[in-house]
Amino acid sequence: MPEPLFQRVALIGIGLIGSSIARVVREENLAREIVISTRSPQTLARAEELGLGDRYEADAAVAVEGADLVVLGIPVGASEAVAKWIAPSLKKGAILTDVGSTKASVVAQIAPHVPKGVHFIPGHPIAGTEHSGPDAGFATLFQNRWCILTPLPGTNPEALEKLSAFWRACGSNVDTMDPQHHDLVLAIVSHLPHLIAYNIVGTADDLETVTKSEVIKYSASGFRDFTRLAASDPTMWRDVCLHNKDAILEMLARFSEDLAALQRAIRWGDGQALFDLFTRTRGIRRSIIEAGQETAAPDFGRHKA
Amino acid sequence: MPEPLFQRVALIGIGLIGSSIARVVREENLAREIVISTRSPQTLARAEELGLGDRYEADAAVAVEGADLVVLGIPVGASEAVAKWIAPSLKKGAILTDVGSTKASVVAQIAPHVPKGVHFIPGHPIAGTEHSGPDAGFATLFQNRWCILTPLPGTNPEALEKLSAFWRACGSNVDTMDPQHHDLVLAIVSHLPHLIAYNIVGTADDLETVTKSEVIKYSASGFRDFTRLAASDPTMWRDVCLHNKDAILEMLARFSEDLAALQRAIRWGDGQALFDLFTRTRGIRRSIIEAGQETAAPDFGRHKA
Ligand SMILES: NC(=O)c1ccc[n+]([C@@H]2O[C@H](COP(=O)([O-])OP(=O)(O)OC[C@H]3O[C@@H](n4cnc5c(N)ncnc54)[C@H](OP(=O)(O)O)[C@@H]3O)[C@@H](O)[C@H]2O)c1
Ligand SMILES: NC(=O)c1ccc[n+]([C@@H]2O[C@H](COP(=O)([O-])OP(=O)(O)OC[C@H]3O[C@@H](n4cnc5c(N)ncnc54)[C@H](OP(=O)(O)O)[C@@H]3O)[C@@H](O)[C@H]2O)c1
Repeated sequence: MPEPLFQRVALIGIGLIGSSIARVVREENLAREIVISTRSPQTLARAEELGLGDRYEADAAVAVEGADLVVLGIPVGASEAVAKWIAPSLKKGAILTDVGSTKASVVAQIAPHVPKGVHFIPGHPIAGTEHSGPDAGFATLFQNRWCILTPLPGTNPEALEKLSAFWRACGSNVDTMDPQHHDLVLAIVSHLPHLIAYNIVGTADDLETVTKSEVIKYSASGFRDFTRLAASDPTMWRDVCLHNKDAILEMLARFSEDLAALQRAIRWGDGQALFDLFTRTRGIRRSIIEAGQETAAPDFGRHKA
Repeated sequence: MPEPLFQRVALIGIGLIGSSIARVVREENLAREIVISTRSPQTLARAEELGLGDRYEADAAVAVEGADLVVLGIPVGASEAVAKWIAPSLKKGAILTDVGSTKASVVAQIAPHVPKGVHFIPGHPIAGTEHSGPDAGFATLFQNRWCILTPLPGTNPEALEKLSAFWRACGSNVDTMDPQHHDLVLAIVSHLPHLIAYNIVGTADDLETVTKSEVIKYSASGFRDFTRLAASDPTMWRDVCLHNKDAILEMLARFSEDLAALQRAIRWGDGQALFDLFTRTRGIRRSIIEAGQETAAPDFGRHKA
């Protein structure tokens, strides 16, 4: 058996992402010891029941002691408080990373507290589901997905390479970019889709002319696809909105502008404009399937044809 | 073997829906003979290669001769032309139905041409996938889905019951409502979701600040869910927009109003409003899963956890 990449990994936050990391670290033998800490005694007890780690600590500062990799798997809005808490206990030479869905804000919250000699490299695995908590994770979550790292200027190249190797060992491809660009890209590929999904489900919920029971019965005609994203964790998504405000507002403005044009084409019966838009958008799905990021099975494979 | 419900079923249009009907009619022995007609010689030849029917006719008027059930499975905008074509050849006592995604316009297009003694009962199976054509259909498409019939005043009750029995034999539950209400319900559960999906994919495609390759690589974070609906048939969706304009514009207005409020909450950092919306929308997915209209597996079951 090859030497594990890390001696001791400390996971702060053990929800969907943290627990998926715990599982793949165990399966792939990426660390000698897994130490787990989370905010609530209940979640910590559940992590222990599931056997996700080797040690369980209520105090995050104790959990990070002596760890050579520390991963924060918590809502982005909690980054500063947790960074302040653990900073004095971080080992010299340790890599500190996170998995938060926004990056510029996380950098602003964490970087000022990182002691000299600790390598802080923000990250974001582009993988997830609509479920939360330690039971929702699984070892293959990151397989064939991308992980974006947003190293700060002057980042130690060996530390960056080691963290990249870690994510590759989890099954992911690794990209690096600056935090601002990450936030813009994620605003369109993730944040806007979630907001639109939440919004349309809210609109349907509010109608007086169509009953909720009708929406539910006939949802297979399109609506149900949106309910998956709109069932995601409210705390996580509140934090994403608050911490990537500018990029999200920019993308929302673009979306609304395009929607106004579409509305106009419908109002004036411009069949050609409608046909052109509806044709252009098909190609993107084909490309996503070819890139191995989506299944080609009809209806996401829900049907067993 | 019990007596089939119908002697001769004529399917005019043999795409996703028409060919799914052909398959289930065969499997469940719902008719003694299946006659197929479609616009293009290519599609007709393909239907024959697939063995979907017993007889194949280029002339729709010939295909409907002597049929006791005629099903139009064509884009809604083609309804009037096809109705005019087949009307003189319809057998007295025959049931004429369709599967179009809008109903008031289909009624307006077809009803004036229906000869006395023919039972015209519009219908819409709430089932489909993003794929088109005779290869895309499958016999289980309608299983556990709803089929909405929108009978006109004075419809013969036996004919209505016979068509309902047909859809139940295809695996569906049957509801009846008036065409206007159908169009309003479908505008929110199907038409708006498709338009929003087409729109967001269009927006992403147009950005200068984020490359198409980035959109594709990182699409697993939410965007790809929208690409399924946005890969649907452009002709079908152009026709839906042109033929359910008023209801769609009404739902678009509601959606935009709600989106403006959401945008405002983001701009002003109103975390509570965001949290409340994101919490309220979770319940609907739960209800849809409980109603058997959606899978509970994370990520639509794309993941093999
Ligand atoms: N879900 C996704 O699809 C996805 C994908 C990529 C990245 N991410 C990012 O990954 C991070 C974790 O998401 P997740 O889906 O794993 O969440 P999750 O399943 O809801 O788990 C959240 C974890 O964070 C802890 N936590 C919550 N609030 C906290 C606070 N105020 N202070 C300290 N700890 C807190 C929770 O602790 P207790 O349970 O003990 O309270 C739990 O351990 C987020 O930053 C999210 O943006 C999520
Ligand atoms: N797709 C769905 O998810 C879904 C669900 C419920 C209801 N519907 C409704 O079902 C109907 C058929 O949809 P589909 O998905 O089965 O479509 P499809 O797979 O694209 O097949 C369309 C069929 O209609 C024929 N056709 C196209 N344009 C025509 C025209 N101008 N005149 C006469 N025939 C024409 C085609 O003939 P050729 O191939 O020979 O040209 C083909 O046989 C539509 O009204 C749609 O709104 C669709």
